[in-house]
Amino acid sequence: MKKIKMGMMGGGIGAFIGDAHRRASRICNDFELVGGVFDADYEKSKLFAKNEGIVAERCYKSVDDLIKSESDLPPDSRMQVVSIVTPNALHFPFAKKLLEAGFHIVCEKPMTMTVREAEELEKLVAEKKLTFALTHTYTGYPMIRQMRDIISKGLLGTIQRVDAQYYQGWINSIIHGTGSRITGVWRLDPKHAGASSCMGDIGVHAFNLIEYTTGLEVKEVLSDLNPVKEDIKLDLDGTVLLRFSKNLKGVIRASQVCGGEENNLTIAVYGSKASLKWAQENPNYLYLLSDTEPTKIFKPAHAYNEQLAENSHTMPSGHPEGIYEALANIYKGTAKSIRGEKFTAGEFPTVHDGVRGMRFIHAVVDSNKGGNIWIKI
Amino acid sequence: MKKIKMGMMGGGIGAFIGDAHRRASRICNDFELVGGVFDADYEKSKLFAKNEGIVAERCYKSVDDLIKSESDLPPDSRMQVVSIVTPNALHFPFAKKLLEAGFHIVCEKPMTMTVREAEELEKLVAEKKLTFALTHTYTGYPMIRQMRDIISKGLLGTIQRVDAQYYQGWINSIIHGTGSRITGVWRLDPKHAGASSCMGDIGVHAFNLIEYTTGLEVKEVLSDLNPVKEDIKLDLDGTVLLRFSKNLKGVIRASQVCGGEENNLTIAVYGSKASLKWAQENPNYLYLLSDTEPTKIFKPAHAYNEQLAENSHTMPSGHPEGIYEALANIYKGTAKSIRGEKFTAGEFPTVHDGVRGMRFIHAVVDSNKGGNIWIKI
Amino acid sequence: MKKIKMGMMGGGIGAFIGDAHRRASRICNDFELVGGVFDADYEKSKLFAKNEGIVAERCYKSVDDLIKSESDLPPDSRMQVVSIVTPNALHFPFAKKLLEAGFHIVCEKPMTMTVREAEELEKLVAEKKLTFALTHTYTGYPMIRQMRDIISKGLLGTIQRVDAQYYQGWINSIIHGTGSRITGVWRLDPKHAGASSCMGDIGVHAFNLIEYTTGLEVKEVLSDLNPVKEDIKLDLDGTVLLRFSKNLKGVIRASQVCGGEENNLTIAVYGSKASLKWAQENPNYLYLLSDTEPTKIFKPAHAYNEQLAENSHTMPSGHPEGIYEALANIYKGTAKSIRGEKFTAGEFPTVHDGVRGMRFIHAVVDSNKGGNIWIKI
Amino acid sequence: MKKIKMGMMGGGIGAFIGDAHRRASRICNDFELVGGVFDADYEKSKLFAKNEGIVAERCYKSVDDLIKSESDLPPDSRMQVVSIVTPNALHFPFAKKLLEAGFHIVCEKPMTMTVREAEELEKLVAEKKLTFALTHTYTGYPMIRQMRDIISKGLLGTIQRVDAQYYQGWINSIIHGTGSRITGVWRLDPKHAGASSCMGDIGVHAFNLIEYTTGLEVKEVLSDLNPVKEDIKLDLDGTVLLRFSKNLKGVIRASQVCGGEENNLTIAVYGSKASLKWAQENPNYLYLLSDTEPTKIFKPAHAYNEQLAENSHTMPSGHPEGIYEALANIYKGTAKSIRGEKFTAGEFPTVHDGVRGMRFIHAVVDSNKGGNIWIKI
Repeated sequence: MKKIKMGMMGGGIGAFIGDAHRRASRICNDFELVGGVFDADYEKSKLFAKNEGIVAERCYKSVDDLIKSESDLPPDSRMQVVSIVTPNALHFPFAKKLLEAGFHIVCEKPMTMTVREAEELEKLVAEKKLTFALTHTYTGYPMIRQMRDIISKGLLGTIQRVDAQYYQGWINSIIHGTGSRITGVWRLDPKHAGASSCMGDIGVHAFNLIEYTTGLEVKEVLSDLNPVKEDIKLDLDGTVLLRFSKNLKGVIRASQVCGGEENNLTIAVYGSKASLKWAQENPNYLYLLSDTEPTKIFKPAHAYNEQLAENSHTMPSGHPEGIYEALANIYKGTAKSIRGEKFTAGEFPTVHDGVRGMRFIHAVVDSNKGGNIWIKI
Repeated sequence: MKKIKMGMMGGGIGAFIGDAHRRASRICNDFELVGGVFDADYEKSKLFAKNEGIVAERCYKSVDDLIKSESDLPPDSRMQVVSIVTPNALHFPFAKKLLEAGFHIVCEKPMTMTVREAEELEKLVAEKKLTFALTHTYTGYPMIRQMRDIISKGLLGTIQRVDAQYYQGWINSIIHGTGSRITGVWRLDPKHAGASSCMGDIGVHAFNLIEYTTGLEVKEVLSDLNPVKEDIKLDLDGTVLLRFSKNLKGVIRASQVCGGEENNLTIAVYGSKASLKWAQENPNYLYLLSDTEPTKIFKPAHAYNEQLAENSHTMPSGHPEGIYEALANIYKGTAKSIRGEKFTAGEFPTVHDGVRGMRFIHAVVDSNKGGNIWIKI
Repeated sequence: MKKIKMGMMGGGIGAFIGDAHRRASRICNDFELVGGVFDADYEKSKLFAKNEGIVAERCYKSVDDLIKSESDLPPDSRMQVVSIVTPNALHFPFAKKLLEAGFHIVCEKPMTMTVREAEELEKLVAEKKLTFALTHTYTGYPMIRQMRDIISKGLLGTIQRVDAQYYQGWINSIIHGTGSRITGVWRLDPKHAGASSCMGDIGVHAFNLIEYTTGLEVKEVLSDLNPVKEDIKLDLDGTVLLRFSKNLKGVIRASQVCGGEENNLTIAVYGSKASLKWAQENPNYLYLLSDTEPTKIFKPAHAYNEQLAENSHTMPSGHPEGIYEALANIYKGTAKSIRGEKFTAGEFPTVHDGVRGMRFIHAVVDSNKGGNIWIKI
Repeated sequence: MKKIKMGMMGGGIGAFIGDAHRRASRICNDFELVGGVFDADYEKSKLFAKNEGIVAERCYKSVDDLIKSESDLPPDSRMQVVSIVTPNALHFPFAKKLLEAGFHIVCEKPMTMTVREAEELEKLVAEKKLTFALTHTYTGYPMIRQMRDIISKGLLGTIQRVDAQYYQGWINSIIHGTGSRITGVWRLDPKHAGASSCMGDIGVHAFNLIEYTTGLEVKEVLSDLNPVKEDIKLDLDGTVLLRFSKNLKGVIRASQVCGGEENNLTIAVYGSKASLKWAQENPNYLYLLSDTEPTKIFKPAHAYNEQLAENSHTMPSGHPEGIYEALANIYKGTAKSIRGEKFTAGEFPTVHDGVRGMRFIHAVVDSNKGGNIWIKI
């Protein structure tokens, strides 16, 4: 099968997330990186391109150059999709221009800086009928997909409580000056990170997983955010109360100052008949709890799983797959969409998920600003 | 060593918690059950006494009879302590009368129905100079005691976040009529349970563990409680935001409708230097996390533990001890106090812990009633 | 219910296993310790008796004194059962005399020093129609009992492999002189420990669990034992190949020099349809694996368990019980037998289990001595 | 960096292991698949090549065609390395011819059918000064590499016991006719699989991990193998006793009939000072046990790890990487070797590891045939 020609904004030397995107695209084997603007510094960008084996003339100075030059190429060799892996503030301007010029988009989260920007992109994608994939990577895990399918079949009964957590500790070394970590410091700067650090970077993953797995929409939030130190401008920690309906409530807890936690993202959905629990650090185990039956552990690569979960795993059972494979699953769905092939809802997060995410982040910030009041989403 | 003569209010045939108290008292081997009022129904009470090998004349009709008769016995054979294991509403009237008559008390939690009652007991205990142990059983676990000691030595640095959870699912079978469970139904009735079901029964354990292990006091709470069904009068589920100080926040999550959860009580305390995590269902493992060192697992019966933790475990390492041993540790500390022996703070929860608990429960209920507002504790 | 009058041989001050027996007997609440020979040193024995609240005249100088004096007491107050918790070499002579005098026996394992002695006790028990309980404590765990019942119902299909392990590390501190541990040194001395250290003390537990849970008999063994150091006379480590039938094989691995292991006893039984796995350090989890279904976790205190497992647990689900409760279950079954009540096979290990154990230990030693050859059991 | 031109023998449509090799080579990003003989059936081979985007003229009919045509290409475009992922019997003839023609080799295990063949390849590799990588994939896991480094630094003290296990259950569905599984049936046929099924396929992984992590050589084995059913010609299950030196023994247990087990490969190395344990299904956790310190958990992506372990992980801590990444690490080391770059011992398994493996398999089979006798390795 012919590979999709892919470009990249950002992701140059030393960039972790750009590297993850490229690995994932190679694992799923449907993409070929042909060019991009890899660094704001053109010299560094060219060095990266050379290392990566990308021809010099497709290493561009700017998004405008990229759009102009690529649009002039014959359809057969022209870049089809651009992966945006820059700091948050650049997602919107780049995505907007590229969509207007007819490129499909893969975009890191959070999608934009404001809700308005997010809605503008959603409108643009609809008008242009283009593919827009937001890399909520965790939705690529087979057992998250299995969770979604089990819930959609009603096996949990009435959902009675939802609880998601995303705890990290890495920012400690920056705020306490104890570590040598220098990447990621931009996350503390509202100009580059937007309205929120903790909720914008990781809380939104918990939020996305809740809506992805349950199919429910969070209606209102009440938040209590914590900058932890006097001189920090954004939240590094917080709890968000969730309301889905009168008698269905939930909670999101997220923190970047939980010393020693790595990527402790968990989700639990409790129903009147049964419940489901999953943890990202051991992603191949999905626990189905019930008051009357032994706890069941679902694992990938078994005939007992639903179709999407099974298609999302390529190893035999018992061989763990990791985050790259999860991200590759997102790319895979994206490739299907670009090629005009049939795909299932849930194969990749869309621009709509981006809008939901931005609404969440801003509602959270507003609730906290308002003195911990309920804000509609 | 001579055994302490113990009486019991409640705890007759079929009562789980009374049985647990008796087992614990036998494990620590410092108590001897000599009489009591085991059931509101005198005939059932007598039947229980007979089965238990208690002489008929010390199976009393009422607390008043008990006080009168026991007070007439010579000091050497007289009941010294009474364990109160009745439904919540009876804790206060029984404890009050017994304290006034000079009996030491072991009391189930929540201590009383109202904050005022709790404060009255606290005052009375101080006046009478009696021992009052509140069975927050979980504080008897060796690794909880180790957690307390590690924190008190400052090894976590500045505490940055506190998170405790108590999830159960047993009430599902009652509220959905799917199970045959009939014990515990009184917990849904405000007359017997007090102001709260979920927070009063289990949320307060999470609260107690937080204050026990960190030595911190919760200053304010904001709660969001959920009766889950229209016809339920008390909370079966809820989230409570906690404020310790300006930049130290936390959360308690508790629920009785998390289908399939059994006694999933957890506590995590995150500090600037290191963090500690513990889970009741695997109580012999205490995890010390750090950003720079391998995670460490502390287990009971090792010389690396602090003194109180070590004294709280009687098996060699690797042989699990359970909840009875935890409760027995509480009894053990209580016995020391009764006998006038030296003991360490933290060996058993006191009436003051009961006051704190009642304040918590009522603040939680008030926050929720007030529209999720902050309430001082 | 009237308590059974119990005596004890050994188990005085500082003895871990005697303490465990007494705690267990108090937990199950069917026994009352009335006398014994608690220490070879009579003064220490008396001191222990005093501390324990045992009347001085029932603290005896010797087993002969005990038999004589107790036999003279009226049936109503006479000692009915004696618990033998001395070093191994004394089990046989004490048990023999006591059985001949009509006392029921609870005996620590390994039952005797030689197979011949074991068989003599078995014969004597049959003749005297007395109860003889061998404290293979692990058979008291609810989930081990559930394992036995699941297998006996044929749910595993044809058993294809059996694997049991018992790894400890405590003897390191003795043989390397790095620790201050002084208890248990007698285990290295053939005069007190018998033919084997590691296999006699812990390998035999693995062996017993295999026969208990599967209902199969090991037919032949081939062993490879390791004293680890030149100057050690007994095995501290070893592997034993097992043959049940032509196409059913298995393995027992046991060691006292696995540094850092505590009581890592595991058993796995693999069948053509499904398999079961259990580990002592987390005894409340029984895993049922299958090639076609999600793994199931059985836990105590659920209606889905078989009867014996359920009767063996007294806490609600999710509250862990420990080793004392397991031992108490053994005592409970023993009490039923003594009282002439109905009980189920499997409620306590009998003298026959002791014979099997002695045969195992000696076959293992002989196989190793013979140059790792197969020895019939 | 320029990609290495890679060919492949086998690995066509439906082949799991060939797909894993290709994914791994794309993850590490140092290889480019340019041609091969993908299937014994030429039509199927061509179809695979087309799907994969490989030019038709480099999809060859035979290994001889491949050698002839590729050798005629200019050095710049010529195939440099060939990955052999055929059934076992073809490894040797293909590897021999390709080595003689000057190609580097990546080869699946077990390397050959006989020890003689293995030694012949070892000699040939030495003569030709070519790179030969044997894909013992598990040695690519970061925590296995950390284990090797910890042991080589002497932190365990004297090693006292070694225990490795590889349990699977997948062959049940074939031998009991209960499943629809048809791949892998050739493993039961001595003509294609060689002298052993279970030990040749998975036992050898356990063996390799032992020698890789400890740096020790197994001197003698005694095995007990089990075909499980009358009509099976090879072992599906077995236990192997290991002798390293007089007082250092160990055991390998492997089985393909442990119903419900997936790829339950574990290794434990016990020393006089400390011990290490690792399990493949949760490969990011390495446990360091000691008698005197809390258990420590090492995880990838931390500065506390040794260099090779750190270089073997590319994600931030807490994001699990899986088997593809492990395999990619092997490819990475192989690429370094081909390019003549510096690399560390342990970066990929060499032909010497293949010789060791073949010796092991045959010694195991011989021990069993000889009636469970010790055989030198």
